Amino acid sequence: MKKQVDLIIEARWLCPIVPSNTIFEHYAVVIVTGQIIDICPIIKASEQYQSNEVTLLTEHVLIPGLINLHTHAAMSLMRGMADDLPLMPWLEEHIWPAERSVVSGEYVQDATLLACAEMLSGGITCFNEMYFYPEFGALAVNQAGIRANLGLVVLEFPSTYANDADDYLQKGFSAHDSWRNNPLISSSIAPHAPYTVSNQTFKTIVTYAEQLGLGIHTHLQETRDEIRQSEEKYGLRPLQRLAEFGLLGPSFVAAHCVHLLASEIDLLAEFGCHVAHCPTSNLKLASGIAPVTQLLAKGVNVGLGTDSAASNNRLDMFSEMRLSALLAKGVTEDAAVLPAHQALEMATINAAKAMALDHKIGSIEIGKLADLTAVKLSDFNTNPCYDPISHLVYTCGRENVTHTWVAGELRYSNGVYANIEPIELREIINTWQPKLRQYKH
Amino acid sequence: MKKQVDLIIEARWLCPIVPSNTIFEHYAVVIVTGQIIDICPIIKASEQYQSNEVTLLTEHVLIPGLINLHTHAAMSLMRGMADDLPLMPWLEEHIWPAERSVVSGEYVQDATLLACAEMLSGGITCFNEMYFYPEFGALAVNQAGIRANLGLVVLEFPSTYANDADDYLQKGFSAHDSWRNNPLISSSIAPHAPYTVSNQTFKTIVTYAEQLGLGIHTHLQETRDEIRQSEEKYGLRPLQRLAEFGLLGPSFVAAHCVHLLASEIDLLAEFGCHVAHCPTSNLKLASGIAPVTQLLAKGVNVGLGTDSAASNNRLDMFSEMRLSALLAKGVTEDAAVLPAHQALEMATINAAKAMALDHKIGSIEIGKLADLTAVKLSDFNTNPCYDPISHLVYTCGRENVTHTWVAGELRYSNGVYANIEPIELREIINTWQPKLRQYKH
Repeated sequence: MKKQVDLIIEARWLCPIVPSNTIFEHYAVVIVTGQIIDICPIIKASEQYQSNEVTLLTEHVLIPGLINLHTHAAMSLMRGMADDLPLMPWLEEHIWPAERSVVSGEYVQDATLLACAEMLSGGITCFNEMYFYPEFGALAVNQAGIRANLGLVVLEFPSTYANDADDYLQKGFSAHDSWRNNPLISSSIAPHAPYTVSNQTFKTIVTYAEQLGLGIHTHLQETRDEIRQSEEKYGLRPLQRLAEFGLLGPSFVAAHCVHLLASEIDLLAEFGCHVAHCPTSNLKLASGIAPVTQLLAKGVNVGLGTDSAASNNRLDMFSEMRLSALLAKGVTEDAAVLPAHQALEMATINAAKAMALDHKIGSIEIGKLADLTAVKLSDFNTNPCYDPISHLVYTCGRENVTHTWVAGELRYSNGVYANIEPIELREIINTWQPKLRQYKH
Repeated sequence: MKKQVDLIIEARWLCPIVPSNTIFEHYAVVIVTGQIIDICPIIKASEQYQSNEVTLLTEHVLIPGLINLHTHAAMSLMRGMADDLPLMPWLEEHIWPAERSVVSGEYVQDATLLACAEMLSGGITCFNEMYFYPEFGALAVNQAGIRANLGLVVLEFPSTYANDADDYLQKGFSAHDSWRNNPLISSSIAPHAPYTVSNQTFKTIVTYAEQLGLGIHTHLQETRDEIRQSEEKYGLRPLQRLAEFGLLGPSFVAAHCVHLLASEIDLLAEFGCHVAHCPTSNLKLASGIAPVTQLLAKGVNVGLGTDSAASNNRLDMFSEMRLSALLAKGVTEDAAVLPAHQALEMATINAAKAMALDHKIGSIEIGKLADLTAVKLSDFNTNPCYDPISHLVYTCGRENVTHTWVAGELRYSNGVYANIEPIELREIINTWQPKLRQYKH
């Protein structure tokens, strides 16, 4: 007798990520209550299982849902508001004034929902967020049915959200409580950056993170200026300063890391830290190019992030995979570095490891959650196909994504969202665009 | 009384490229026999003109058709066949053996048609081609209804197409005769590269180019190795060597130019040469990053090219615009360099200038041909929109292209080609993929 299951997905190609650089052909994924219970040839699945729901992906490659390891999703409404500007005028004359003017809980919920819609349509099933009002971001995450690791953001300076570091922390912990037991949402403490957080606050954060078992997510050594200022103010480079507080370790995720000394790469490796590489944002804000090849060579776990729509301007992991592979080859002048399968790993399992979620997501393995993305390879722009892994990184774009599942639930398919109405997104845009337009470059 | 015209296109936004960095809102383009006869506010167009055909682009930006300044379109069937390899093993172990085995007139016609379909769907209306059997490429160009500047390719070594340099030249001239008076096709002489063409042949080419009034299109200083070999063999860097034959001038288009001395940038500027910048291909083959900011600063005219689908792997000018702008900022660490409007100019008017076609195409101006592309900006991934020019370069992808016109004829619209059937492309893929598969990496 066949075993009754919730969903069977039959795919022309299946790229499980673990084991590395592997493609299974004509394979099925079998799902019960959101969890993968079997991965086997289609013919075997049809002999052993029955399901009311069977999705046929006859021209597609099925991959684990992509994971965006560094985002400020709630900046989606500021996309293209100010481009071609250096970091400081961009922040001081456009982004920060806009934020002071419009950012509220309602704004964060609305803008995060728009970002979730964009990410789901591009095959992203989980993101590592840092922004104000995370409890409102969580409402959007819940509605969209996407997975998120929400940062409890901490800065010294006041905002519409909180008054000082202690206020940020307390608000963060109350947000953390608001989504406790929510299967889609986890938390990290997110001190914004070494240049916006004091020594005392970093010490407090380390204590809280240990007590609560939370990871830490921060910006690190994104620009040369930030390093110079740290040397002037503290006599230390930012990473050295964080190391002194005991911040480094396997639950530490550093976004950017554009400018690193060889000794700093060793330090990150030694402590098992994770890096969120954001190649598009680093180029667009003219920060530079992170030494990804060297980080990977030393064994540092590197994931990929889009950063915000204000500095990217796409929340598109296909663009980041492609750019990270291309850039690594170009700057090292070695075409063999960062091959396609490694870029895919950075966008899936590596990011899952960085958030300590790799027991649940990041690969298609029995026992993991069914966070899955289907990419159609039959378009004329992606044909012929000699190697689906090459196509995923070098040829496909997010426009080739057809289905996105989170924990076995279909959240996006061919232009339609399970829980987001187009009219709702239209209203969000119509509400906020007039308020933001005045901060345009 | 209203003047009868062939086509009126009414656009929410119009980006004419000339004048630079300009957006007209609610503007119409009026077309008679493939030529733009007026550009004016929609309200004025509806008062002065009548047409049986009016296209409403209520949520779109209308731009000049994109121009791909360096292609080997007929390599479309080799996309993704061999990636993550250095240039020489890539060529010697995969691409060249595949070419020796399959390349014929029929192959070139089929593969070029597939590439034309890809390019039209991505808003590309003209490409600057270099490949064997150009007379067969021309057949595909004619069918697709795209515009092309076809290179009369010249090498010393024999191929399935020709035996020696003289044979290549004679075959090229007979191809050139075959499309004489064809309004869509122009020619250039295309010596493959300094390392595959002899001194004597370069001298002959210069003479022919002057006699026939043809431009010259070649690969130049793409890799460090090529420069070192030239120094060993000729005692000269490739550009110096070409300069000695009198090749440099305003009808000379050099593809790649990754490795240039400051004095070589000055030389290119002094002679009014043009550069086809191919950022994706240069990164993917690990050649390096061309000094585009310096070239532009010295007044060298720079256009953008995809190179072939075997080294890109997208024939996608949106990717090239975006990457060229991002890379220039990242490597100079100056976010203000290569702003969005300049990337758009590189993909349109600059490329038209390089092929001496700027009296006909490259901008939306009265008297020019109606080579036009519509890009829809109403998707949630491209909304809100504060600045259409920013969105075209940093946010849009080719998936946002909805209409492509060449000389006023609609050649592609929303997934449908005027003159290419899906079944035909499917047959092309089914014919050639089995023959090429054995050369896969």
